[in-house]
Amino acid sequence: MTDIPKTMRAAVLYGEGDLRLVDDYPVPQPGPGEVLIRVAACAICGTDPKILAHGWPNHPPYGQFIFGHEYAGTVVAVGDGVTEFAPGDRVAVEPHKGCGVCANCRDGYYTTCLNYGRPEKGHRHYGFSTNGGYAEYACNHVNSVYKLPDGMPFEVATLITTAATSLYGIRRIGGLEAGETVVVSGPGPIGLMAVVMARLLGAGMVILTGTRPDRLAVGLRLGADVTIHAREENVVQRVMELTGGIGADAVIECAGTVQAAVDAVEMAKKNGRVALVGIYQEPAPLNINKVVQWNITVAGSKAEGERSMAQALALLARGAVDLSPLVTHTFPLSQIHAAFETAEKRLGGAIKVVVKP
Amino acid sequence: MTDIPKTMRAAVLYGEGDLRLVDDYPVPQPGPGEVLIRVAACAICGTDPKILAHGWPNHPPYGQFIFGHEYAGTVVAVGDGVTEFAPGDRVAVEPHKGCGVCANCRDGYYTTCLNYGRPEKGHRHYGFSTNGGYAEYACNHVNSVYKLPDGMPFEVATLITTAATSLYGIRRIGGLEAGETVVVSGPGPIGLMAVVMARLLGAGMVILTGTRPDRLAVGLRLGADVTIHAREENVVQRVMELTGGIGADAVIECAGTVQAAVDAVEMAKKNGRVALVGIYQEPAPLNINKVVQWNITVAGSKAEGERSMAQALALLARGAVDLSPLVTHTFPLSQIHAAFETAEKRLGGAIKVVVKP
Amino acid sequence: MTDIPKTMRAAVLYGEGDLRLVDDYPVPQPGPGEVLIRVAACAICGTDPKILAHGWPNHPPYGQFIFGHEYAGTVVAVGDGVTEFAPGDRVAVEPHKGCGVCANCRDGYYTTCLNYGRPEKGHRHYGFSTNGGYAEYACNHVNSVYKLPDGMPFEVATLITTAATSLYGIRRIGGLEAGETVVVSGPGPIGLMAVVMARLLGAGMVILTGTRPDRLAVGLRLGADVTIHAREENVVQRVMELTGGIGADAVIECAGTVQAAVDAVEMAKKNGRVALVGIYQEPAPLNINKVVQWNITVAGSKAEGERSMAQALALLARGAVDLSPLVTHTFPLSQIHAAFETAEKRLGGAIKVVVKP
Amino acid sequence: MTDIPKTMRAAVLYGEGDLRLVDDYPVPQPGPGEVLIRVAACAICGTDPKILAHGWPNHPPYGQFIFGHEYAGTVVAVGDGVTEFAPGDRVAVEPHKGCGVCANCRDGYYTTCLNYGRPEKGHRHYGFSTNGGYAEYACNHVNSVYKLPDGMPFEVATLITTAATSLYGIRRIGGLEAGETVVVSGPGPIGLMAVVMARLLGAGMVILTGTRPDRLAVGLRLGADVTIHAREENVVQRVMELTGGIGADAVIECAGTVQAAVDAVEMAKKNGRVALVGIYQEPAPLNINKVVQWNITVAGSKAEGERSMAQALALLARGAVDLSPLVTHTFPLSQIHAAFETAEKRLGGAIKVVVKP
Repeated sequence: MTDIPKTMRAAVLYGEGDLRLVDDYPVPQPGPGEVLIRVAACAICGTDPKILAHGWPNHPPYGQFIFGHEYAGTVVAVGDGVTEFAPGDRVAVEPHKGCGVCANCRDGYYTTCLNYGRPEKGHRHYGFSTNGGYAEYACNHVNSVYKLPDGMPFEVATLITTAATSLYGIRRIGGLEAGETVVVSGPGPIGLMAVVMARLLGAGMVILTGTRPDRLAVGLRLGADVTIHAREENVVQRVMELTGGIGADAVIECAGTVQAAVDAVEMAKKNGRVALVGIYQEPAPLNINKVVQWNITVAGSKAEGERSMAQALALLARGAVDLSPLVTHTFPLSQIHAAFETAEKRLGGAIKVVVKP
Repeated sequence: MTDIPKTMRAAVLYGEGDLRLVDDYPVPQPGPGEVLIRVAACAICGTDPKILAHGWPNHPPYGQFIFGHEYAGTVVAVGDGVTEFAPGDRVAVEPHKGCGVCANCRDGYYTTCLNYGRPEKGHRHYGFSTNGGYAEYACNHVNSVYKLPDGMPFEVATLITTAATSLYGIRRIGGLEAGETVVVSGPGPIGLMAVVMARLLGAGMVILTGTRPDRLAVGLRLGADVTIHAREENVVQRVMELTGGIGADAVIECAGTVQAAVDAVEMAKKNGRVALVGIYQEPAPLNINKVVQWNITVAGSKAEGERSMAQALALLARGAVDLSPLVTHTFPLSQIHAAFETAEKRLGGAIKVVVKP
Repeated sequence: MTDIPKTMRAAVLYGEGDLRLVDDYPVPQPGPGEVLIRVAACAICGTDPKILAHGWPNHPPYGQFIFGHEYAGTVVAVGDGVTEFAPGDRVAVEPHKGCGVCANCRDGYYTTCLNYGRPEKGHRHYGFSTNGGYAEYACNHVNSVYKLPDGMPFEVATLITTAATSLYGIRRIGGLEAGETVVVSGPGPIGLMAVVMARLLGAGMVILTGTRPDRLAVGLRLGADVTIHAREENVVQRVMELTGGIGADAVIECAGTVQAAVDAVEMAKKNGRVALVGIYQEPAPLNINKVVQWNITVAGSKAEGERSMAQALALLARGAVDLSPLVTHTFPLSQIHAAFETAEKRLGGAIKVVVKP
Repeated sequence: MTDIPKTMRAAVLYGEGDLRLVDDYPVPQPGPGEVLIRVAACAICGTDPKILAHGWPNHPPYGQFIFGHEYAGTVVAVGDGVTEFAPGDRVAVEPHKGCGVCANCRDGYYTTCLNYGRPEKGHRHYGFSTNGGYAEYACNHVNSVYKLPDGMPFEVATLITTAATSLYGIRRIGGLEAGETVVVSGPGPIGLMAVVMARLLGAGMVILTGTRPDRLAVGLRLGADVTIHAREENVVQRVMELTGGIGADAVIECAGTVQAAVDAVEMAKKNGRVALVGIYQEPAPLNINKVVQWNITVAGSKAEGERSMAQALALLARGAVDLSPLVTHTFPLSQIHAAFETAEKRLGGAIKVVVKP
């Protein structure tokens, strides 16, 4: 339909820390079951600076590797056999596409595909082991593409992956019953989105804990009822007080620290559930005797599994929540280095920084 | 019906370590909803020596406290309103009876009753906060009593609580799919019963790990396919080999050690589940990054919850498994001190020691 | 605390169709585990006119029988052992209180108590087999009492039972995934509340079907996206069109007609779920071949089970939905006969009619 | 590896009722992700005579159509990218392979693939819309192939599909709790296998109902505790008696008749579950008022979904059940017409008739 050029502008990783803007990168061709997307916006995930600095296992060769996995745009061409999408469709993508053959994929758990990092088996991890979205065009298998509701801006659409990651954490602990007391620890983008998701799912009291007052304030705007400053108050004690000594029904741990994980167990009620959504650098000495005696469930959640993208999109589509506090900065692709610096150093109170190719 | 005496022989705890045989303890009267049981057999649980040594929170007053919670016998009288049992019924009991009023109890989770240790709210923990079974007679609320199948000896019936505890661990991780690879760590009574339960539920390969060869050998007789000696082999590495590098679908941790809990996470597969069934003395540094990245569920299981007694009884009732290797010793009530010594020191290869009042 | 009189005004059923206002009915005394409530409002349920006309199995004796089961008010006294509530608490009640002893109750399914209608076993069905709320005072066991959020008017609180009934239908089919297409058939109070619940739980498209345009219009105000007039359109065909030929993820059948139940199966998608929430007078010829070939689940839902009251309260507590369109009429207790006539004949577009003792 | 000929013997459907043995049918070539199987045995399913008589929607062209979908054999070659199997592997197959792209497939529900009958989307229904097993060789996608345990004869392996269909019915109603009372209606191969599965899953009393005494007798040998002759006894009444008036926890309806489906609901207990596994010719007037008032779940189960093949294989692999009563007849492929006549007319008490190419 539209004129698709042969080459495109892209941010290409040439080595550790060596990200270069290139103007003549070949536009990829959609294979069978794939679509070609004109990327409108790609958000910087907390993992991206790490990829920039250190690469990723099984990444495409340096000099060809385009990362970025939280992107949205418009379908401009489709590969053989694609009936699910058509040029003109506004879409967001998810990073994981399973092999479809292993036991986990066949049971629906494609984010824990047993053929991770093996493209020859059909696995894709866009922006990690497969090229992603810091470019004018990107190819995605239809299993990783979701139609956007009318009126959802592309910048907001880049947040769907974040929302879906929070939502999958909630799903992994059996969802939320209406009225349950939920603690979200860690007011990063995933934590803040967990507040939004919990509110939209009918949670009762939503408590957000963290160490940065400005972020906690954003959490209040997004639906938290109470915030706890983790350095100024004893978080566990405060949650126990707020719950009449019983503890929280569900804790969504998004801070990614050992202390937060330890605390998560300590503040759960008898029969409570703890979702671990963070990235942890070391083992956490959990009080497993309490886990047993209080019949507690602790579940890790791998990314935006089990089509949480579709559910997150649906929850956000109604527009009941104003997500604008989350997208604090946007940059053109030509300023991607500034974008990364803003995101990494949280310049100007940066929460989510979006790059627009 | 039968002549019920006014007094009975009982082993009464008079203080820490002070267990005395008494011949004139008043036979209890069954209140509304209760039955009076002529105790035929009461097994010594691993917790009992601790109660003997240190008591238990909220225990009945020393000088009146009869502990023992794994007992079976015959109903001899029923209290007001009891229609569920009649004199002559052969029964086993479970230790926990919830308040029936708190949110957990009303949802079916009575082992994590929010009114634990408050008899005035209807909670009972027989052999702990309420009198139990090292006596000729005991009173139990009907919610804690289960009819025995014909032909099941009372000694075997005392194992139902142990079996139900193992089974609840399995239930807490969503049960077992037929064919799943299951690792049971710790060949104590609960671990050995977990082997039995896994086998009866259709598990595929059942792997038992532990440090005592004689116990591992018992595990093989009870249905384990493979045993791993935890001091002579690297348990995690061996499980990964046995599973083609994928890991176990389910791990039932019954050893109660920090190392075993840490290992349990390490040997679980992507999407695997870990049940914690042991009693742990300190926090365990779990690899929570793996828990997240591999989408693992870790669930503690509190005792024989959610009527697991009924299910364990049903599984064992068919007689498909010969449990005789587990009851290694029996003693009359008059020799209860010898029974405790045998159990604590594992004299003569003791696994389960049963006292017969 | 407050002065509680010895006698009260009550509407007492003296026989079939013989409802009398009495001014000297003894105020009940709360027994152990019970609270005494000063009833502020009691809504007329669709079952109430049937009780008025025909009584109910195991009802209290005529001349003493006070029915009405959707009531709210203020606790004024508590019985022995009650710690959950105190005088002054504003509360709503639920009709069912299980025996707490049968297998269903112990598993949490008290609305299908196996001791239904046997008060001697502890079962209560307030307003049916036990006295209810068309009176100045009523006694309820604490298991059937729920605290109201501040600011929720008593008239609205009488709707919680209705909301909880809708919600339990949804729960019985596994809840709703965010974004699912939901059809609600039958715009009576339960159906309209099902629309509200589906919306609050994150449903995608909510389709309401029925035969009365004014009720369908109320449904739109309460959150339905589309309405279908069942006499003017082919409902099944229209749902299939609206869903691109795939069918609805979930159908909540609240019309209580055979045709609606038959249609519910026909409009479900492959793997879809159908909740039956209505009261049906005769068997319905369901297309069970489709049920098999399309892997469909059909679940009946008995009343407001599994503490759905608590969840419904939580969902409504945030005030996100204006329920005022549902309470169309209120009458003082002295005009209860007019209230019933209004409800039965739907005078003045009556939806819910509330009596205020 | 082995010498694979260019052509093979096959039973080819040339038109309605026109099944011809052909000796020069081209041996199929395994495509990417496929394996070529030397078929050792293919059982006649109840659907096969219908395909013989009437074809099947979207079947391959007459003159090329090989049906038969319950087969087992040995892998002799693998297509591009296949790492899951190797020549020499003994395997059984399942009929359904989903598209892997639609929402149902991605959630694990491939037997209700939304692209059914569209091979261009990747869907396969071996023996129906794709060629199957009444031939010396057959090609299957790896997703439809399962390794056999050592020692399982190929004739027995052809029963895995039947077992898996029964098992999926059980799975669709939430599995079985140990000790549950299960009624299986209809002693055809699926019903008899449901008896086997229920027994292996720890069911309590297993009741088999039917109209043919010889089949009921086979059911007793396979593990049923009680049989009911449906023409000589009132089945519902008898089940209620056997369950003390409470009803069955689970009913697995395999008879495929309207009456059996109606009865299934009538004999379920409060909170009971009914699995519909049969093929029904007309709507069944279910007592849906009971479904609501008794909180009953009725679930259809589509074939051997959610990898039930793997689970059924695991349950049968231990050899705890002697399945030899089920395979009553075997024929060489050259006598396929006699095989069909035996199966259809149940000559010589035929239950399962196996063809060996």
